[in-house]
Amino acid sequence: MSRFTVERMREHAASIFQAGLEAVEPERCVRRFVRLEGKRLLVGDRAHDLARFDRVLAVGAGKASPRMGLALEDVLGDRLSDGAMNTKYGHSVPLRRIELTECGHPVPDQAGVAGTDRILDLLRGAGERTLVLCLISGGGSALMPAPVDGITLRDKQETTDLLLACGANIVELNAVRKHLSRVKGGGLARAAFPATVVSLILSDVVGDPLDVIASGPTVPDASTFATCVEILGKYDLLHRVPAAVRSRFEAGVEGKIPDTAKPGDAVLGRCQNLLVGNNGLAVEAARKRAEDLGYHTLVLSTRVEGEAREVAHAYAAVAKEIATSPRPVSRPACVIAGGETTVTVRGAGKGGRNQELVLAGAMDISGWDGIVLFSGGTDGTDGPTDAAGAVADGETVARADAAGRPAAEYLENNDAYHFFEALGDLVITGPTGTNVADVALVLVGEGGGSKENRFPKSLW
Amino acid sequence: MSRFTVERMREHAASIFQAGLEAVEPERCVRRFVRLEGKRLLVGDRAHDLARFDRVLAVGAGKASPRMGLALEDVLGDRLSDGAMNTKYGHSVPLRRIELTECGHPVPDQAGVAGTDRILDLLRGAGERTLVLCLISGGGSALMPAPVDGITLRDKQETTDLLLACGANIVELNAVRKHLSRVKGGGLARAAFPATVVSLILSDVVGDPLDVIASGPTVPDASTFATCVEILGKYDLLHRVPAAVRSRFEAGVEGKIPDTAKPGDAVLGRCQNLLVGNNGLAVEAARKRAEDLGYHTLVLSTRVEGEAREVAHAYAAVAKEIATSPRPVSRPACVIAGGETTVTVRGAGKGGRNQELVLAGAMDISGWDGIVLFSGGTDGTDGPTDAAGAVADGETVARADAAGRPAAEYLENNDAYHFFEALGDLVITGPTGTNVADVALVLVGEGGGSKENRFPKSLW
Repeated sequence: MSRFTVERMREHAASIFQAGLEAVEPERCVRRFVRLEGKRLLVGDRAHDLARFDRVLAVGAGKASPRMGLALEDVLGDRLSDGAMNTKYGHSVPLRRIELTECGHPVPDQAGVAGTDRILDLLRGAGERTLVLCLISGGGSALMPAPVDGITLRDKQETTDLLLACGANIVELNAVRKHLSRVKGGGLARAAFPATVVSLILSDVVGDPLDVIASGPTVPDASTFATCVEILGKYDLLHRVPAAVRSRFEAGVEGKIPDTAKPGDAVLGRCQNLLVGNNGLAVEAARKRAEDLGYHTLVLSTRVEGEAREVAHAYAAVAKEIATSPRPVSRPACVIAGGETTVTVRGAGKGGRNQELVLAGAMDISGWDGIVLFSGGTDGTDGPTDAAGAVADGETVARADAAGRPAAEYLENNDAYHFFEALGDLVITGPTGTNVADVALVLVGEGGGSKENRFPKSLW
Repeated sequence: MSRFTVERMREHAASIFQAGLEAVEPERCVRRFVRLEGKRLLVGDRAHDLARFDRVLAVGAGKASPRMGLALEDVLGDRLSDGAMNTKYGHSVPLRRIELTECGHPVPDQAGVAGTDRILDLLRGAGERTLVLCLISGGGSALMPAPVDGITLRDKQETTDLLLACGANIVELNAVRKHLSRVKGGGLARAAFPATVVSLILSDVVGDPLDVIASGPTVPDASTFATCVEILGKYDLLHRVPAAVRSRFEAGVEGKIPDTAKPGDAVLGRCQNLLVGNNGLAVEAARKRAEDLGYHTLVLSTRVEGEAREVAHAYAAVAKEIATSPRPVSRPACVIAGGETTVTVRGAGKGGRNQELVLAGAMDISGWDGIVLFSGGTDGTDGPTDAAGAVADGETVARADAAGRPAAEYLENNDAYHFFEALGDLVITGPTGTNVADVALVLVGEGGGSKENRFPKSLW
């Protein structure tokens, strides 16, 4: 009997996903790159001589940052002088030296402003003999609100809302927001100058663009005040944004106030940015586990974006190819894809991008033998649900049909949660405390099998 | 200097696509599977003893069928007794024994009905000592209209239009149409009974479902009269379709008239269906050429479907992965994908699914070095245009921008044709006389390169 029955493959998928999650646990990510060796702090391929520093501070923000802090406190012990970080409500862990502030996400609040002030206060005392360790993770942008002088949090929010209403893209939004912040776009590194800054970054953004993750508090910014004026002009918003915003941008263009940090700026000269975890790490660990389970593996990409139900078609196309040919990888096969899809919500149902992807994929593979689809968010929270994602096979749609739950209607209504809940096919991990976007799995058993090859062999 | 500059890679892409086209030339497909050896006609893995037959007939329909006929006449010479085939206006080639009828496509016309009558007349005389060679290719369904007695072509069209207006899917449409036809759903094989029938099929349908290609004139049908009544009931059309259609379906359900041919039916017992060409054949030939050119190759699937601009995201995600990692295949890399995407038309522009896919993909890879995207229809006709598809690289969007042609606007307006026409980046092959859906290529040069990795190395 094959070791790759659909039932076993469903268990395998859960195990493969779990291996991915474990690889990106915040503590593990920090420990993998940060080590104390005598008086030297090894961070990635660099060594920092602790004898050169009077103080070692830990700052940062993000949903996974407290757990990164746990590992850092463990590694540094007494060498850590002080620390201040912001995280989302409910995301605290017991830290000894780092003061945690819980605050609003995704909408920033005054608690976030107060916490960020605390972080900036701490950095104000940083000098040449200070080492600042900055722990950055997903959510860090909203969790470190720090409007520049003369601009209120409400001004920032209003400007953001106007841009969103005009259909501005995320690059445009970020450019404008960085120019209204004391922290984003290298602002945190500037605040810490002339200290040595080591930024440990857990990436939740596809492609790991360091200037985008948490809005790049220690990373140079490619946009300028002129960019901002251009963007506001493009959407005819120059005279609709709060007057203080326009004044600031105009003063910036005239060179009266300094722009965000640029590549080569002295304020970034003592700054090391190190990616300590990303989707690729989870995907590689998943691949390794799949290989250990006996699958031939193929990682398609760690950068998959696009409408979830359409991406599902692509995965199903690969699954069917494997089931009916030796391409692109021989059976039993596990294809792994990372990234983050989106859902254009049209219905009134409940779901998330991973669940919707698996629902659409289930329709494509309906009636096929030996194929399992799985997709999950590494944070354990897919959309506004308590599930990380869902799993499906060739019988899923028929099982749901028999229970009076037509897949097409549930998909139409963006109601994947209730579709899979009734089948017992939600993937529930609970919040994982980390986030490196999503991992999708396509498993194809040894036999492969197509409902299309239903003609007697003798006909061929 | 690298052999894999973007300029060279564009030439390579054209050459790789061309290799795919050559592999599925109709003549070549027939010759690959049909051979005369003394008195034996070898077709695939079967041998037909020509001494057993008094007559050898050639029938069929499709856009590529005349060129399949050319090869067949060549192979059989004097052994071919007679023949009749239908093809689209303008698709004739000079045949000696096979009488060609040009007729309407995609909307069937009376010329088609007359031509199909000629085919059925020819088969009427077929007996046990007749060998019928049936040449089937894309378009064969519309090109062989043969309404059953009592039903007019207009009745069929009206029924089809009603179903389309209700949002019926292609499986439902085909079930109903097969039950109104003397040819579809095994009808042609039934007409030829008790002759031996060898059907040579050039597939234009993703996944090569033999009962779907040209509506399966020599292939068993899974649907029944009961299926048809159920479909009409589902859309509340039972009393809105022409009365003759309803009467026929009801008589069928009552067993008063025979259903379409089913698996195991005696009328199909002497029928060999052989796939002689499909997307996989083109894709494999393309892969071989890419390998010869020095690329590491990966065939993703021959079954890609979905919205063209969304599929483009998936290809771009794979391209970027290759450019920035050793996955899923090392550089220089050529990823090949076959299938047929769709376009939801919202704008008023001109284009086709391949051109739109490349336009959307060009936006994704904009600014990236060493990536070329290419997609083309193997029939040489992408949508209602004279182009087969288009090609793009990381500079394409910037080049168009500089010429005042913003990619986003052209995509929004479904106007990929004019976007690429202005750049000289349309792929023009002219009509190829064959059709096995589309072939898409993703080429990534040796270096790879990401605009996102724009930070100085020292920052890492």
